[in-house]
Amino acid sequence: MTRAYNFSAGPATLPESVLRQAGEELLDWRGARASIIELSHRGPEFMQVATEAEADLRTLMSIPDSHAVLFLSGGATTQQALLALNLAAPGQVADYVVTGHWGKTAIKQAQPYVAVNVAADGDGGGFRDIPPATDWRLTDGAAYVHVTANETIHGVEFQHTPDVGDAPLVADFSSSIAAGPLDVSRYGVIYAGAQKNLGPVGVSVVIVRRDLLERTGHARAPIFDYARHAQAGSMLNTPPTFNWYLAGLVFKWMLAEGGVEEFARRNARKAAALYGAIDGSGGFYRNEVAVAARSRMNVPFFLHDDALDKTFLAEAKEAGLIALKGHRALGGMRASIYNAMPEEGVQALVAFMGDFQKRHG
Amino acid sequence: MTRAYNFSAGPATLPESVLRQAGEELLDWRGARASIIELSHRGPEFMQVATEAEADLRTLMSIPDSHAVLFLSGGATTQQALLALNLAAPGQVADYVVTGHWGKTAIKQAQPYVAVNVAADGDGGGFRDIPPATDWRLTDGAAYVHVTANETIHGVEFQHTPDVGDAPLVADFSSSIAAGPLDVSRYGVIYAGAQKNLGPVGVSVVIVRRDLLERTGHARAPIFDYARHAQAGSMLNTPPTFNWYLAGLVFKWMLAEGGVEEFARRNARKAAALYGAIDGSGGFYRNEVAVAARSRMNVPFFLHDDALDKTFLAEAKEAGLIALKGHRALGGMRASIYNAMPEEGVQALVAFMGDFQKRHG
Repeated sequence: MTRAYNFSAGPATLPESVLRQAGEELLDWRGARASIIELSHRGPEFMQVATEAEADLRTLMSIPDSHAVLFLSGGATTQQALLALNLAAPGQVADYVVTGHWGKTAIKQAQPYVAVNVAADGDGGGFRDIPPATDWRLTDGAAYVHVTANETIHGVEFQHTPDVGDAPLVADFSSSIAAGPLDVSRYGVIYAGAQKNLGPVGVSVVIVRRDLLERTGHARAPIFDYARHAQAGSMLNTPPTFNWYLAGLVFKWMLAEGGVEEFARRNARKAAALYGAIDGSGGFYRNEVAVAARSRMNVPFFLHDDALDKTFLAEAKEAGLIALKGHRALGGMRASIYNAMPEEGVQALVAFMGDFQKRHG
Repeated sequence: MTRAYNFSAGPATLPESVLRQAGEELLDWRGARASIIELSHRGPEFMQVATEAEADLRTLMSIPDSHAVLFLSGGATTQQALLALNLAAPGQVADYVVTGHWGKTAIKQAQPYVAVNVAADGDGGGFRDIPPATDWRLTDGAAYVHVTANETIHGVEFQHTPDVGDAPLVADFSSSIAAGPLDVSRYGVIYAGAQKNLGPVGVSVVIVRRDLLERTGHARAPIFDYARHAQAGSMLNTPPTFNWYLAGLVFKWMLAEGGVEEFARRNARKAAALYGAIDGSGGFYRNEVAVAARSRMNVPFFLHDDALDKTFLAEAKEAGLIALKGHRALGGMRASIYNAMPEEGVQALVAFMGDFQKRHG
């Protein structure tokens, strides 16, 4: 069996060594005579897994003690509702900077709870750039300012942490967390569904500045309360233990490979190779995002003639390159090249694209 | 490697054949050249998994078309909040029948949203019996009546579906779903965290009568809306695909073993053997639950001298019987004997208990 290069946007490719280890431990976790998926979340085996996962993520991302780390069930969409419930008083204004599909989703989830102010909206430009910060209409005393660090569908990424003044900056990092060094201290909340750049689906990571846990927020069920989750070490109820365990294996793999500095270098090379192939194709392929806002992680691109799309996808699959179909909202193609996508995978895609152009150009 | 008999209350033991299949498919799901955990939830591979899982669960539990089946992230505790948000108007009364720890939890999650009426409370009797239905103080026009079908900690189980009049009956079946035949049509909502009797942690099953999806409920985030999840086939956002896949394997295993009728027979034999050993020990072991309310799934028991507890647990582990320590709220021991616990496991426990008593009695 040769595994394909899998460009899925999420659930996404995992390091093969992580899958192999998980497979080897699946029936008997390190002599426990049971699978880690069968063991109590409060027992010594899983407590070790959970503790190491948090410690490793803190090392990997240089997360300061000022910030708590939560491992929660549900995806980023759930967090988009929970952060409004936890960080804003009923009816308080929250600022949203919209740079793609997921920013719009974030607003929909928050709208029942906060007065949403769209501080900037890239929709007018088809989400091909990030509105300049000088044009953002931020609100004095906003509960928080929300951005989407990387838009998975539109392929638009902040290259720098924006300066939003005193309001805490809340960022959806689902598709770019741990893609490179980041000054976590500048964020109030960083949240991410793990199924993109951290590997396994079914668990979210929420990194939250501890003083924000003291906000009253909305009347809410205890299970929706970040502070309670933090106090309980993310074990307020039974957490998704197997997913958490897999994320922990991915963290260890990232550290062993050289940490976020090394992944920043690899990701820069991968993105340069792929955008270079697109830009150098003389219009056979095109990416429409402003160069300064192009995502390192998700590269949407279009063939000059969309009648070729089906052939491209079929031949790519034949060549061992899968999940290149673009999101239904945009059409075309999309290559997601997260940390776990090896450079060889991008090189194979670039080679295939060149060959396809020769045969169909 | 010999796997232990694992009596954990949840996360709990999985059928070994399910773990073996998951392990064999982990790097390459049936020729897809990627793991099922790496594939898009909207792709043909996972859509097949999802569709079969629902169909198999419908067959297994004889779920009528009148009821929708949701596969959601988060555990039962999350559902305890969501059902109040979805089924009750703000401030409307909901009746709760409390027969143990989880009934109390259900109230805590709902209390921010509904006027909770405790219709009956077994706490006065130490949760050793179910308050007689004739004593329940139900509310005319209640949004719903909530019961916990099986209390995992206290080992108290409803042997029959209670008659609660016109209000929809909502039941937490986390630890007894699919333990035997059930008339699903008599329930408004059946919900269950899967990590007990359905196998994998990280996904919940919610079976909801379709007319209840039309209730207005509370203003809430779209991600908290049962009707939207139902319309989207539980793919409103990225679901916990690997957990859902594992649950599907467990459903197929249950069907192949003979379905809920067969598990009802096995579970009756397992419970009879274990309670028989306790009751026949002349007081060396004791279970304090009224015979008519004893759980088939979770058997809490105490040694006559709790100074022996540590020795019991250590010797049991040595004998390949793990996770017998009782919940911290009760102390003592607890043996969870879900569908996936083979009869041989219970026989081994009974034999060990007899031997232990001989040596320490």
